[in-house]
Amino acid sequence: MRTVKAPRGNALTCKSWQTEAAMRMLMNNLDPEVARDPANLIVYGGTGKAARNWECFDKIVETLKKLESDETLLVQSGKPVAVFKTSEWSPRVLIANSLLVPKWANWEYFRELEERGLIMFGQMTAGSWIYIGTQGILQGTYETFYAVAQKYFEGTLKGKFVLTAGLGEMGGAQPLAVTMNDGIILAVEVDKRMIDRRLKTGYLDTWTDDLEEALRLIDEARKAQKPLSIGLLANAAEVHPKLVESGIIPDVVTDQTAAHDPLNGYIPKGLTVEQAAELRRNNPQEYLDRVYDSVCEHVEAILNMKKLGAKVFEYGNNIRRLAYDHGVRNAFEIPGYVPEYIRDLFAQGKGPFRWVALSGDPEDIYATDQKVLELFPRDEHLRKWIEMAREKIHWQGLPARICWLGQGERTAMGLAMNEMVKSGKLKAPIVIGRDHHDTGSVASPYRETEAMKDGSDAIADWPILNALLNTASGATWVSVHHGGGVGIGYSIHAGMVIVADGTELARKKLERVLTNDSGIGVIRHLDAGYEIAKKTAIDQHLNYPMMK
Amino acid sequence: MRTVKAPRGNALTCKSWQTEAAMRMLMNNLDPEVARDPANLIVYGGTGKAARNWECFDKIVETLKKLESDETLLVQSGKPVAVFKTSEWSPRVLIANSLLVPKWANWEYFRELEERGLIMFGQMTAGSWIYIGTQGILQGTYETFYAVAQKYFEGTLKGKFVLTAGLGEMGGAQPLAVTMNDGIILAVEVDKRMIDRRLKTGYLDTWTDDLEEALRLIDEARKAQKPLSIGLLANAAEVHPKLVESGIIPDVVTDQTAAHDPLNGYIPKGLTVEQAAELRRNNPQEYLDRVYDSVCEHVEAILNMKKLGAKVFEYGNNIRRLAYDHGVRNAFEIPGYVPEYIRDLFAQGKGPFRWVALSGDPEDIYATDQKVLELFPRDEHLRKWIEMAREKIHWQGLPARICWLGQGERTAMGLAMNEMVKSGKLKAPIVIGRDHHDTGSVASPYRETEAMKDGSDAIADWPILNALLNTASGATWVSVHHGGGVGIGYSIHAGMVIVADGTELARKKLERVLTNDSGIGVIRHLDAGYEIAKKTAIDQHLNYPMMK
Ligand SMILES: NC(=O)c1ccc[n+]([C@@H]2O[C@H](COP(=O)([O-])OP(=O)(O)OC[C@H]3O[C@@H](n4cnc5c(N)ncnc54)[C@H](O)[C@@H]3O)[C@@H](O)[C@H]2O)c1
Ligand SMILES: NC(=O)c1ccc[n+]([C@@H]2O[C@H](COP(=O)([O-])OP(=O)(O)OC[C@H]3O[C@@H](n4cnc5c(N)ncnc54)[C@H](O)[C@@H]3O)[C@@H](O)[C@H]2O)c1
Repeated sequence: MRTVKAPRGNALTCKSWQTEAAMRMLMNNLDPEVARDPANLIVYGGTGKAARNWECFDKIVETLKKLESDETLLVQSGKPVAVFKTSEWSPRVLIANSLLVPKWANWEYFRELEERGLIMFGQMTAGSWIYIGTQGILQGTYETFYAVAQKYFEGTLKGKFVLTAGLGEMGGAQPLAVTMNDGIILAVEVDKRMIDRRLKTGYLDTWTDDLEEALRLIDEARKAQKPLSIGLLANAAEVHPKLVESGIIPDVVTDQTAAHDPLNGYIPKGLTVEQAAELRRNNPQEYLDRVYDSVCEHVEAILNMKKLGAKVFEYGNNIRRLAYDHGVRNAFEIPGYVPEYIRDLFAQGKGPFRWVALSGDPEDIYATDQKVLELFPRDEHLRKWIEMAREKIHWQGLPARICWLGQGERTAMGLAMNEMVKSGKLKAPIVIGRDHHDTGSVASPYRETEAMKDGSDAIADWPILNALLNTASGATWVSVHHGGGVGIGYSIHAGMVIVADGTELARKKLERVLTNDSGIGVIRHLDAGYEIAKKTAIDQHLNYPMMK
Repeated sequence: MRTVKAPRGNALTCKSWQTEAAMRMLMNNLDPEVARDPANLIVYGGTGKAARNWECFDKIVETLKKLESDETLLVQSGKPVAVFKTSEWSPRVLIANSLLVPKWANWEYFRELEERGLIMFGQMTAGSWIYIGTQGILQGTYETFYAVAQKYFEGTLKGKFVLTAGLGEMGGAQPLAVTMNDGIILAVEVDKRMIDRRLKTGYLDTWTDDLEEALRLIDEARKAQKPLSIGLLANAAEVHPKLVESGIIPDVVTDQTAAHDPLNGYIPKGLTVEQAAELRRNNPQEYLDRVYDSVCEHVEAILNMKKLGAKVFEYGNNIRRLAYDHGVRNAFEIPGYVPEYIRDLFAQGKGPFRWVALSGDPEDIYATDQKVLELFPRDEHLRKWIEMAREKIHWQGLPARICWLGQGERTAMGLAMNEMVKSGKLKAPIVIGRDHHDTGSVASPYRETEAMKDGSDAIADWPILNALLNTASGATWVSVHHGGGVGIGYSIHAGMVIVADGTELARKKLERVLTNDSGIGVIRHLDAGYEIAKKTAIDQHLNYPMMK
């Protein structure tokens, strides 16, 4: 098998850092430490790929090595299709992945075209060369619980009791994300191996299989106002209704069982993991029927907790839809996590901003961590994140940092990093980018744009404007994709990456791109009627011509 | 009612010619001479609008008047939503109209959003401010018949017999388009008023209501090898089968009855126009049943003519589908006009290129006409078009010229016009643009990308790459739209406009934009396997990294 790894250090193999950065980041996406299935060029998220095939990969690399600083490479669904003369202000690479004329935008047709070698699924950061591994999950979850605290608990989960279920790949970040917000969390998980994994990596403090004991521990932590995470080996469909019966109502309730995939991701009550595996194999229909019953009880318990005052939300696992389809007609009274918690961050231009050290040296990231603390000394929340990230996060591929900065902050940080490169404080240039799951870059009515205030959930003008604007502002590469996160037919989104190479031109571009990229997001939310976006726009001097 | 007319002359009301041009072209789109329903901001093509409402229109104008040469205005479905600092290489306006996440991309949902004031239908050149009236129809038809001649008749329709039906708004261009190609045309039309209109404007040479006489005239013209157009007052569903019976087989057969709208656009046989109107009113179902019968006989006759050697094609009126749905199972053996004739033009980078004189002075357009003849002295076909256009075309709003130039030619013409502005040979700058119905700017599986060689009809990466590339190359305004031509759900397409203001910067931008914009079109066709595109790419030194 072929192994790809980005070059490290500050020697150029391309003609500029702009093209060097694109090449290294493409390679880094396929680094075995980073990619899920590098042999098939798959990075993450189902079949999200970095290039259409190895021939295309090689040709992209070869083209980037020759590309001049006033030329632009075009990539169509992972295939390099053209080089044109543009200008030094232009992106070096323009990417369009997985886009289909709407009437044909479904998985069946997409797979047909894929089999004929004509298209590629780009997910979000896979086909746009800025995936940085699992850091994103931890911070996303941390930010969500922080937003819960901000919205309902005066900024802290101190002394608050959070109930959830599922300690899998993503769900496993919940205990740490809550304790980092000073809260107490009970995570119900039916699989002991999952509990053990989280204990071993320090994501979870303790565990028990006795609900009474768990409640006692929670009570103590509450009184002491101390953070604590407890794994409870049990089934949520049994525990949740029991809590309601006993009148024990958590402050916050969510869920990360993999209910989006009922046959493989949800264990019905009354079965061990082993028994569940057997029934699934021998009688999938009976398995599913049991899942539906359990999910309904589970969701009804959550609805009851809501009625009794708990703050509840769905965390993108589609459990509402499943319960709704099997009889819980009011399942959608549980709000989605984006409208409830992330929307307000997006409205302030906050989102999964990130950067990568092209040197390959972790010291470069530590130096930027230090810079974050220097630039935003009063941001306690940010300090916590940076400290925790240093302690907990293992490098995958090129060292990187994710950091949810908002309007204005991203610009300040980008300019500071460019200055650090210029003055030699960093060993090589820095690549700055973000997820497509960001403030102004995505239209996705079942996730990022669910329940917009003005009903504009499905309008896709915004991600396209975002991509055009970043192209006009000096980004190093820009991408537009379809179907990321929620699948073909359900989203349109755009990516942006820019290189801080220490030059004056990079300074000008960074100032514009990092202001405009999230700026259009703030304005998208202001236009939809969000007050906090309006306030941000005014504070940050954004120009919205129709301002009343 | 409010009347909008663009300023003329060479005095600026904005801060630069780039913004002045955008403002004048927006206003020109709403000029009563140009727009179909200016009171409702509707320009053409159903409800294709130039701005969302009058408040938005005023705010766009106000914003353009203040806009600096390193700022960019963003327009979301006809509403001005932001101004950002970019660079002097960037477009002054970026536009996204009517875009929806695919799963929600249908007319019903679109109309709902439109009623709530959240979206606007932009058609192609309506919402992107480069509509120039009905010139386009005549040249499009002229080019189609020219392509027929090129493909099957050694470059000329001399002595060839073309059969069609329908002399309506678009169809009325057919007689002149054929005689301009030196051919003979019989146009069957059931409405005498339509025939009279075409006679009066010189689009049609003569008429008769006697098929025998028409055939005699055709015979004479054939022998004399003289161009001739004849209107035959009759119904195509009666004439066509009769011709087949008599063994009279035309060389070329097409159709422009408005069969896409069976109730209003097609008259069943046996009825006069007045009788048809009455039946339509009193018994629409019987009307439709009669239409289906007539259309089937009409299409079967065309299929028979094909079997007997005629070159037949559908001209975008969906008559194949109608016949297919009512029993003619082989209706799709009639090819569409794009794969048959326009595809090869697109593959050479040819398409509806156009320019507009901001001075408002027709002399400026005559001077550019002269320049076309000078630059391409051996192109007989082009000379004919320019001469005919001068003679036949009435100005609508600002004087304009449409001219299907190809890869390389567009660049040469753009640079020449910039030089003419610089040297004072023109009274004011020139706006250069094109329809979205062009070589590399549209994905539309029922029209522009029907039956692509590699099956990539529905892949929409290309129009997005086109828009990003034009933004990166220095276009003055760039747009991305959804649903133009064929309706919501069925197409994604991009527009480009650039101003030749005589400056050195404009020269550099024109060189890049006019080369790259059609260049990506040539490459899109090369990538799909068209040999003529490969040849064009090689001749024009386009860079396709995967070239074998
Ligand atoms: N919107 C987002 O961006 C977002 C973010 C994170 C997670 N999610 C969703 O959250 C879900 C979890 O993701 P994951 O990667 O952690 O899944 P996973 O399959 O790795 O883990 C699911 C866990 O739930 C446990 N479980 C299943 N049924 C249970 C029950 N009845 N009681 C207790 N535990 C039970 C399983 O044993 C497993 O450990 C998925 O549906 C995912 O799509 C969405
Ligand atoms: N693909 C394209 O870009 C493209 C270009 C041009 C036209 N079209 C299509 O061509 C069609 C014609 O367009 P238009 O604007 O000229 O329509 P129109 O309604 O103005 O004219 C149609 C004409 O056909 C005549 N007619 C109807 N039934 C007839 C019959 N049975 N026999 C003889 N004459 C008959 C009517 O009297 C009328 O004059 C439309 O369907 C249009 O969508 C498509």
